[in-house]
Amino acid sequence: MNDIAVYVEDLAREAKAASRSLGFASDEARCAAVRAMAAALRQRADEVLEANAIDMDAARAAGTSEGLLDRLLLTPERVEGMAAGLDKLADLPDPVGRVLDERDISEGVHLGRVSVPLGLVAMVYEARPNVTADAAGICIRTGNACILRGGSIAQNSCVAIARILADAVEASGFDRAAVSIIETTDRAATGALMALRGVVDVLIPRGGAGLIQRCVRESLVPVIETGTGNCHIYVHESADFAKARAIIMNAKTQRVGVCNACESLLVDESIADAFLPEALSELGAAGVVIHGDERVRGVAFAGEFVDATEEDWGREYLALEISVRIVGGIDEAIAHVNRYGTGHSEAIVAEDEEACERFLREVDAAAVYANASTRFTDGGEFGLGAEIGISTQKLHARGPFAAEALTTYKYELRGAGQVRP
Amino acid sequence: MNDIAVYVEDLAREAKAASRSLGFASDEARCAAVRAMAAALRQRADEVLEANAIDMDAARAAGTSEGLLDRLLLTPERVEGMAAGLDKLADLPDPVGRVLDERDISEGVHLGRVSVPLGLVAMVYEARPNVTADAAGICIRTGNACILRGGSIAQNSCVAIARILADAVEASGFDRAAVSIIETTDRAATGALMALRGVVDVLIPRGGAGLIQRCVRESLVPVIETGTGNCHIYVHESADFAKARAIIMNAKTQRVGVCNACESLLVDESIADAFLPEALSELGAAGVVIHGDERVRGVAFAGEFVDATEEDWGREYLALEISVRIVGGIDEAIAHVNRYGTGHSEAIVAEDEEACERFLREVDAAAVYANASTRFTDGGEFGLGAEIGISTQKLHARGPFAAEALTTYKYELRGAGQVRP
Repeated sequence: MNDIAVYVEDLAREAKAASRSLGFASDEARCAAVRAMAAALRQRADEVLEANAIDMDAARAAGTSEGLLDRLLLTPERVEGMAAGLDKLADLPDPVGRVLDERDISEGVHLGRVSVPLGLVAMVYEARPNVTADAAGICIRTGNACILRGGSIAQNSCVAIARILADAVEASGFDRAAVSIIETTDRAATGALMALRGVVDVLIPRGGAGLIQRCVRESLVPVIETGTGNCHIYVHESADFAKARAIIMNAKTQRVGVCNACESLLVDESIADAFLPEALSELGAAGVVIHGDERVRGVAFAGEFVDATEEDWGREYLALEISVRIVGGIDEAIAHVNRYGTGHSEAIVAEDEEACERFLREVDAAAVYANASTRFTDGGEFGLGAEIGISTQKLHARGPFAAEALTTYKYELRGAGQVRP
Repeated sequence: MNDIAVYVEDLAREAKAASRSLGFASDEARCAAVRAMAAALRQRADEVLEANAIDMDAARAAGTSEGLLDRLLLTPERVEGMAAGLDKLADLPDPVGRVLDERDISEGVHLGRVSVPLGLVAMVYEARPNVTADAAGICIRTGNACILRGGSIAQNSCVAIARILADAVEASGFDRAAVSIIETTDRAATGALMALRGVVDVLIPRGGAGLIQRCVRESLVPVIETGTGNCHIYVHESADFAKARAIIMNAKTQRVGVCNACESLLVDESIADAFLPEALSELGAAGVVIHGDERVRGVAFAGEFVDATEEDWGREYLALEISVRIVGGIDEAIAHVNRYGTGHSEAIVAEDEEACERFLREVDAAAVYANASTRFTDGGEFGLGAEIGISTQKLHARGPFAAEALTTYKYELRGAGQVRP
C-alpha cells in the first residue's frame, strides 16, 4: 500500500470513529453543531475568500474557462448563502431515531426497526467549493461523519471551509474528524477512498458524467449514482399544441446545464406536419440547434438544423441543442425512451388520459410526467428539503434524494432470555 | 466481446424486455403465474428428479463431500417443498403499486410516489437447486423478471426447474424470458452478468463467502451483500448467568452452519471466574472447541481449548468452534464488536437496563439483541414473509429482506401544462 492509500485510510478510520458518538447524539446537539458551523463560516468569511482568491488566481493563470471560473468563485454573498443553507438544515425534521416498525415476534421478543445514520459518508465533487458546506452540513445534521474530496482546482477553498467547519464541530463537543477532507490533490486519493468498503458506508459523487462513471466503475464502496439526465418530451397525437410548446421551451431553454433539462423531443407522425414548424421555429428563435432525423429534415422552420446520428439519441447535450425524432405512436415512443433514456425525468404531452396513464406506467424512470415540464424534478420542488442529488439508480434512493437517504435502519430486539425453539 | 458475453447479454436483454409487461401486470395475474409455476413443478416432478440424478451421479463420481451432496439432492418431498413455497408466495401481500406519498407540488402539479418492481433481478447461487424456484417465484410475484445462475454442480437440476417454471409463466400469458437461466457452466458467464449495469437492475449472490466477495468486488451491477455473520454474545457483569448460558448454547449449537449462529463470546472480567467454568464446560460437553485468549486459558473447564490468534476474532467458523475473550467492560466490548463484527447480529446479556440500551444504540449491526439469542434473525421470525437473504450492507436493505427489497419507487407527476417558473 502506498503513502496516499495509508493517508486516506487513516483519515477515513478517524472519521468513522468520530461517526460513532455523532450517530447517537440528540437532535438538539446535532442541530446546534450545524448552527455553529453556519456561525463560524460567517465569522471567518475572510479566510474563505482569501483561500478562494488563491484558487481563482491559479485557475485564471491555467486558462480555465469562464463557466468553470464562475463555479469556482466565492463572494461574500456566496459564503452567506452557504451559511444560510446550514441554518436551514437545522430546521429540517430529524430523520434519525424514527421507529419504522414495532411488534412482538415469537417467544415474546420485542422487535423495533429504527432509523439510524449510515455512519461515514464520502462525497467526491469538483469545482464548486460550496458543496463542502452543503455536504458537511447534511452529514452532521443526520448524525453521519463525512470524508470530503473536492476538485483540485478548488482545493484551497474546500480545505479552508472544511477546517472552519471542523473547528465548529469540535467546539460543539464532537470529534472534529467528523468533518474530514482529503488534503492532497493527488488523483490516487480518490481511488484509495473508493477501495475502503467496510469503512466508508456510501460514496456520493457530485459532478460531471466522467466523475460519476469513474465512481460507478471503480468503487468497492456502494455508490449512489447521480445526475445524468437524457430527458425526453413526447408529444402525443392528442396533445394540446400550445401546452406542448410551452413545456418544451421551459424544459429545454430555462436552464440548459441542468440534468432535468429536455434533451430529446419525440413527436407522433400524425401531427408532425401540424406541430413541428411552429415548435421548431420557437426553439430556433431561442438559439437551439435541432438534431433531426430524416423526416424532421423535411419540416420548414426558422432555425439551425443538423442531421441526427444514432449517437444523438443517447446524448445529454447540456447546451442549446436538442434531438428530434418522429415516432409511429406511443408504443414506439415508450420503447425509445426506455432504450435511450437515463432513467431521470420523462414527459408525455397528451389530452388523451389513457395515453398519459400508459406512459406514466410503462416508462422506467425516476420521475415521469404527464403534461408538465421535466424541470420540476428537484428535491426542493418535491418537498424533500435540502437536496443532495438526483439518483438515476433504483436501489436505496431514486430521483431527488435528501437527508433520509443518509440513513439506514437497525433492528433492535429486547428480550428476557429467550432462545429460538 | 467473446461468445459467452454476447450470449449472456442477449439473454439478459430478452429477460429485461420480458420484465416490462410483468411490471404492470395485475396482482391477480402475477399470483396466478406463481400458482401455475407451483402446479407445473408438481406435475413434472419426475423431470426434475431425473435431471437431479444426473447431477448427483456426476457429483458422487467427482468425490463431492456428503454435506454438499445433501445440499444438491432433490427428493419428491423437496420438490413438493419448492411447490409449496411458490404457493405461499401467492398469499403474500402485493408490494407493488403502493402509493408511498402523495401531494400537490408547486403550480398544482400532482405528485405521487408509487412502489414499482426493480425490473431485472440476477440471482447467483451454488449447490442448492431449490433456490431456482425460490428466486424465480419471488421475482414473478413482485413483477420482476429474473436471470438465474446456478452452481455448475447443480446445472442439470437448475435448468430443468427453470424450464418448467418458464413454461408455466408462458402458459400464464407472460413472456417466458421472465424466468431465464444461464445454460452454460462456463465461469466467464458470471463475469459477463456482473458487467451488465443498466440491463440487470440488481444482483443478489446467495452462497458462501467466496461467491459473495467475488460479486462485491467485481460487479458493476449493484449488489445486495448477504450472509456473513461473525456474531458476538457479550456477557455483561450484570448478566443473569442462567440466561446467558442458555442464549450462548442456543446461538452456538442449535444450527452451526447458519449465519446467525454465535461465533464469538465476550465476557466482562469482573465475572469471568464465576461465569466461565460452567459456561465453557457446557459448550465443551456439546463438542464446541474453545479458541480462548490468554486469560481464558486460565479457566478450568471440561472441553477442548485452542489459543486464539488475532485472526480468530474475525472468523466465522460455521462449525462447533467459538472464540472467547475477556473484556474490561462494556466500552471494550462495543469497540470489539464494531471492529470485528460483520454487521449481522450481535447480543448483550445483562440485567442492567442502561447497559442494554447502550449496547443496542452503539453497536453497528443489522440486528442488535438484549437478552435474546441471535438465532432469531430470520425473515420468517421477523414477519417479512419469504426471506431472500440477510443483508449485511446498509443501503437499500439491511438485515433479513424479502419481497419489498425487490421493489423501488417512481415519482408520477400529473399536470395540465404546467412549466417551472
